[in-house]
Amino acid sequence: MKSATRTDDATRAALRERLVEFHALGKAADLLEWDQETVMPRGGAAARAHHLGILKKTAHELFTAPETGRWIAALVPSAEGRDDDDAALVRWAAREWRRRSRQPAVLVAELARLTALAQEDWSAARAASDFSRFRPRLEELFALKRRQAAALGDFPDPYDAWLEEFEPGMSTARVDELFAEMKAGLVPLVKAVAAKAGSVRVPELSGSFDPARQRELGLEVARSMGFDFARGRLDESAHPFSTGIAPDDVRLTTRYREDLPFSALFGVMHEAGHGLYEQNAGPDPKSTPLTGGATMAVHESQSRLWENQVGRGRPFWRRWRARFAELFPQAAGLSAEDLYRAVNRAEATHVRVEADELTYGLHVLIRFELERELLSGRLAVADLPKAWAAKSRTYLGIVPPDDARGVLQDVHWASGLIGYFPTYAVGNMISAQLWDAALAARPGIPAALERGDGAPLLGWLVDNVHRHGRKYAAEELVRRACGGPISAAPYLKYLRAKFGELYGL
Amino acid sequence: MKSATRTDDATRAALRERLVEFHALGKAADLLEWDQETVMPRGGAAARAHHLGILKKTAHELFTAPETGRWIAALVPSAEGRDDDDAALVRWAAREWRRRSRQPAVLVAELARLTALAQEDWSAARAASDFSRFRPRLEELFALKRRQAAALGDFPDPYDAWLEEFEPGMSTARVDELFAEMKAGLVPLVKAVAAKAGSVRVPELSGSFDPARQRELGLEVARSMGFDFARGRLDESAHPFSTGIAPDDVRLTTRYREDLPFSALFGVMHEAGHGLYEQNAGPDPKSTPLTGGATMAVHESQSRLWENQVGRGRPFWRRWRARFAELFPQAAGLSAEDLYRAVNRAEATHVRVEADELTYGLHVLIRFELERELLSGRLAVADLPKAWAAKSRTYLGIVPPDDARGVLQDVHWASGLIGYFPTYAVGNMISAQLWDAALAARPGIPAALERGDGAPLLGWLVDNVHRHGRKYAAEELVRRACGGPISAAPYLKYLRAKFGELYGL
Repeated sequence: MKSATRTDDATRAALRERLVEFHALGKAADLLEWDQETVMPRGGAAARAHHLGILKKTAHELFTAPETGRWIAALVPSAEGRDDDDAALVRWAAREWRRRSRQPAVLVAELARLTALAQEDWSAARAASDFSRFRPRLEELFALKRRQAAALGDFPDPYDAWLEEFEPGMSTARVDELFAEMKAGLVPLVKAVAAKAGSVRVPELSGSFDPARQRELGLEVARSMGFDFARGRLDESAHPFSTGIAPDDVRLTTRYREDLPFSALFGVMHEAGHGLYEQNAGPDPKSTPLTGGATMAVHESQSRLWENQVGRGRPFWRRWRARFAELFPQAAGLSAEDLYRAVNRAEATHVRVEADELTYGLHVLIRFELERELLSGRLAVADLPKAWAAKSRTYLGIVPPDDARGVLQDVHWASGLIGYFPTYAVGNMISAQLWDAALAARPGIPAALERGDGAPLLGWLVDNVHRHGRKYAAEELVRRACGGPISAAPYLKYLRAKFGELYGL
Repeated sequence: MKSATRTDDATRAALRERLVEFHALGKAADLLEWDQETVMPRGGAAARAHHLGILKKTAHELFTAPETGRWIAALVPSAEGRDDDDAALVRWAAREWRRRSRQPAVLVAELARLTALAQEDWSAARAASDFSRFRPRLEELFALKRRQAAALGDFPDPYDAWLEEFEPGMSTARVDELFAEMKAGLVPLVKAVAAKAGSVRVPELSGSFDPARQRELGLEVARSMGFDFARGRLDESAHPFSTGIAPDDVRLTTRYREDLPFSALFGVMHEAGHGLYEQNAGPDPKSTPLTGGATMAVHESQSRLWENQVGRGRPFWRRWRARFAELFPQAAGLSAEDLYRAVNRAEATHVRVEADELTYGLHVLIRFELERELLSGRLAVADLPKAWAAKSRTYLGIVPPDDARGVLQDVHWASGLIGYFPTYAVGNMISAQLWDAALAARPGIPAALERGDGAPLLGWLVDNVHRHGRKYAAEELVRRACGGPISAAPYLKYLRAKFGELYGL
């Protein structure tokens, strides 16, 4: 059996090297995309689309070379039932192989090219608040994504093909189950809070909030969370995002609005939550695809936890009130409790990324339902603004006054991130589960946050989530960290307690 | 013969597609390098080296796949003697094939990795002005570059192997010939000017020069040259450079010193000279390797022409004096003539990029001679500072006071740009030849520059240099534009006339 072992080792090494190279080419593409969103001159868009198309096609062809499939097939049997990193890498490769070997390289290149162009079109359309400028490209894009879904084929639900890209291991049926639970709890809660909203005083902050000072506050808060700026950056972009070029090179972006005091702050905390995950999910610069966040829902659980459970919590504002008032004199007369109430104003609004915690899940529902209708063909891209308005009326009770605050608000579709939105809501659920587990394990976390010390919370997250990288999918990771399956119940319980107290329910 | 033609067409299309992909991967690598020099967090260096190594190896393997060689071999005979773009592309591919097929992919990857790391080491060593911190990496690098030269083999002069990377079509013997001509004219001229320097009044500018204002001036001047900032950027880096990610995405960098009023200005004009070439050397975003500057000497002819013949000329200062004095009140009492004299102070100094036109060629000689000694093994990397001091004493009559202003001043070796320096001096020669030809063809150029209008000069350069892209090597391009071979004579004549007048020779 000795020679068989040797052969297996050589195959394992060959597969690993292939995956390291594939991963590196993907990271190069990530940098080209970061550059496009932050610093690229506008004129560079066509060439960027071309370069990204070729880079992604090259990576795809490297991965789908026949020998990769042979190596995977040879290693899968011995990986079964094992929990080590090597086995996890083989399982990752097997799933990726299944998806990629069904997509021709030209489709991959065309998707990369189209999404690079679509982002420019989206950006211009959003600036003009005119969906018609984005529509032709979005039609192309959804048509191509439908072709992709058909090529991937063989799923119990057609939406599974899109979802799997971001949330491997989770079916659309499972999302339906979780969303039904969430909707059943959330809709009456939102109604109950809305009924009380008029009678509860929420402190107001008005005037102008200097972007440079907003940036300074964002940097200070991100540092206090444990984000390492020697291994990361904070820049501006039209739509905030974060990207891990490597664990030692993690980039956050945000946008500043002079009239909104909290938008950039929570935006930075959100992205820094992602960024902390990337900085701690694999220390080796020669990363494999196991380096990085497990799934997008787990990623969102990190960003939402820091943004909401921390940033919209009382301990945080006890620590940051004075500094906030120093930077923004409008807040001089406000107590920590006032600011806590101000950042937790519950009110249906148009823009998801600025929504309160309570209504956030409903914004996700709108997008999830629209995507499924677009996929099935029941809805045409041209009818999106109308359909958006209808859903917004149903779930939020309001209709967007223009395209910029409606169907054009998110960059996701332009970026090809179709099938991504459900992970935000599942991420919220997981964030509540992790928060409960972290507090149970380390009761000193709130006191530490009140001192501006994110280390105890970060330490627990590193131990229970980050260090596993992409080894486990969401359900398994949550089971290990929290002792049970993903559930909407802790999230609903958290919202009921928080908003029940704030709005006297 | 019909079927043979069809086959040739198919082969030509296949080769073209391969070259387009190869070129695109190279441009992606260029962006990773730009990012490293301008915005990358310091922590990202190791991963960047790793990613660049894999990206360059992937491009190399794509190019050197056996079928590329077969396509080239099949097309070379029919390309002979033809002047069309297709034939030029085949010739370019044949030369690149000759070089690349001799270099194993691991060597290419190792060079990319080492140079990415070396830039970090150089940067730290330069900041500390301590060569010993850079020495170990530089030893590795020169050892690897010597291995590369050996692999490339079969050149009349071993230095040809390095030179060809930057100046294809030019032999070291030809450089020797041109440099002998330059040295024979330059050394006595420098001596004659030095003898008069004490007796000539050169206006002084002192105090502090706000970097933000220096940047503003740089942007205005670059715009007046014709550089399009909708298709380009200007950033800061430790060592100024420019890079064409695409003709519509050209990036310049500079550095600002508060105590030097002209350093960044001429730096920006230099890089914008490169940048104009890149913006006009191929309009198609799906570029082939023929898009871009012909050779580095031709590239340097563009940067040096704008920096020197334009920026250090009288018409330029007649246009910009008032604006300069507005930004920097220290210059309020100076006339255009005063500023012309101030920017043409002839004096041996330590730093090449801040050298006057007169001594610049001698800085290049120092580096060229040291590189040849390092290649032959007559000089060890450890002895570089000593050898640098000796050469500096011989050619410039001064010895650098520290490593930062001596052997550590240039990023080139750290970037793997070994064999590059001679192109600067050849570029100076070509700049004088092009300047003469441009003025003869369009006598209105100086008057236009005096109005701040770079268009007539840029137009001539686009027609006679830029639009050819990489189609012709330097000698052929100069022959077409100026009617004769490359020569040091017009450059020496230009220097004698200019500095003869300034210093009363």
